Amino acid sequence: MTVATERKIRREDLYPSRVHDVPALQEREDPVVYGAEHDGPLRADHLRRYEQFGYLVFERMFSADDVAQLSRELEDLRSNPEMADRPEAITEPDSGETRSIFAVHRLDHPLSRLCTEQRVVEIARQLLGGDVYIHQSRVNYKRGFRGKEFYWHSDFETWHVEDGMPRLRAVSCSISLTDNTPYNGPLLLIPGSHKTFVSCVGATPDRHYEKSLKRQEYGVPDDDSLTRLAERGGIEAALGPAGSVTFFECNTMHGSSSNITPFPRSNCFVVFNHVDNALVDPFCGLAPRPGHIATRPPVEPIV
Amino acid sequence: MTVATERKIRREDLYPSRVHDVPALQEREDPVVYGAEHDGPLRADHLRRYEQFGYLVFERMFSADDVAQLSRELEDLRSNPEMADRPEAITEPDSGETRSIFAVHRLDHPLSRLCTEQRVVEIARQLLGGDVYIHQSRVNYKRGFRGKEFYWHSDFETWHVEDGMPRLRAVSCSISLTDNTPYNGPLLLIPGSHKTFVSCVGATPDRHYEKSLKRQEYGVPDDDSLTRLAERGGIEAALGPAGSVTFFECNTMHGSSSNITPFPRSNCFVVFNHVDNALVDPFCGLAPRPGHIATRPPVEPIV
Repeated sequence: MTVATERKIRREDLYPSRVHDVPALQEREDPVVYGAEHDGPLRADHLRRYEQFGYLVFERMFSADDVAQLSRELEDLRSNPEMADRPEAITEPDSGETRSIFAVHRLDHPLSRLCTEQRVVEIARQLLGGDVYIHQSRVNYKRGFRGKEFYWHSDFETWHVEDGMPRLRAVSCSISLTDNTPYNGPLLLIPGSHKTFVSCVGATPDRHYEKSLKRQEYGVPDDDSLTRLAERGGIEAALGPAGSVTFFECNTMHGSSSNITPFPRSNCFVVFNHVDNALVDPFCGLAPRPGHIATRPPVEPIV
Repeated sequence: MTVATERKIRREDLYPSRVHDVPALQEREDPVVYGAEHDGPLRADHLRRYEQFGYLVFERMFSADDVAQLSRELEDLRSNPEMADRPEAITEPDSGETRSIFAVHRLDHPLSRLCTEQRVVEIARQLLGGDVYIHQSRVNYKRGFRGKEFYWHSDFETWHVEDGMPRLRAVSCSISLTDNTPYNGPLLLIPGSHKTFVSCVGATPDRHYEKSLKRQEYGVPDDDSLTRLAERGGIEAALGPAGSVTFFECNTMHGSSSNITPFPRSNCFVVFNHVDNALVDPFCGLAPRPGHIATRPPVEPIV
């Protein structure tokens, strides 16, 4: 008997996953857009599109000069030998190269200011309807030639089960520092998938996160559910030149293919969560993941 | 000391590869287009494009009815339990599922007629300037969700080194039985790369082909050469609905990303070689690969 099938579903668990032996699709219980047009910079048509598709792409929100500066800072951070040994750094299994660095917003480094960039935070506040905090931040570097794929997943599924995020009231923001073309492993999304929660099968082993950040094994949606979502919504990519910004709802099913092109991809990824949706005990019943992966209460809104 | 560095370069080896310790780029010694406009169905602008970019895509060369019929035949072939145990069948390392079946043109099966389809052969004859034979044929099935990537390679590099194809006078033809979208792992090509031969480093181990059809390790172009080719020509994909046909020159650098979409890809792949370019002894000095992978002389032109 696995951990998952043993555990009782808590009364406040509106999105149970890794509990049952068969996958299930469930309509979301929460709004998609919490704010209104007058609450921030997004126009009514932006809000409608986000409501319908679960994501928005803004081309060139950052200038070429901004991108050049941010890229230098990213390289400075990645090449810092002290960084590579910290738990915040995730390395490529084969080469040992640093692929991601978590909790950038807590670093004493110029790049950390990007996480609280006003233009971005204002959009997050509008979508989520008020005060937000940073649930997670990281920079990602996906190398060329041998950039690995990332299989389909809903971020919320993991944040709910492993971190204890109660409701669907978070938005991810990806600030691209390189061009996203169709063929260098861009973010793929299933439009409209944010409206359906896919309950995954299987248990969550203890200290799972140490491996899962390199390779996914749990919280993986099943083939039939993905087929249904993709037949309904299709598959789109978040494309655009460096400096483009993608906002996607925390339950939008996404992934990326491998990158065999010579062109690497890097981005800064920030997740905003509404302060009323701060983490509770993880719904899998295990110990929570460390604070650099998921900010735990008490939380302070970004001012 | 490896096999490759030991071997002498034969006088007639115009495209040495897996011989030196450093990679090299070399301009091709052979024409790209051997025939003229009046020799076949391709117009002058088709021939110019092929000459310049190294490939041509014809959308819907086969009708939806043709595709439906061919797909049924492919499934019939793949699901034949006798087929799976034959050396012509290549299976997925993890699932054991049949991924490719070689030498389809020799099978006593309806699908084999596709390899000598007149519309296709006429184009091959025009591009290569006269009588052609089938150097290799296969059907490929790249599953959805977990379809593996294929790294960049020039087919000619392998056919030259491992099979003994002397000159650049062959064309590959891929008849797609499923839609090729940007995101289900389509054929990626580097336009113009057919004009440059990338000499790869490393030796060729004996009976290498038994593994290489599942995973590439030898004849892999280096990062710098790929970067130069891609910066010069960009990266394009052969997209189009099922029934589309792609012709690409035997030295065109190509590959494909992984396929995480639910949509599988299948195609029939036929390589035409000019009868005057029949195989000689492999240039790596090892025993030739089996006949179901590379047709050995004497060769008979398709009539």
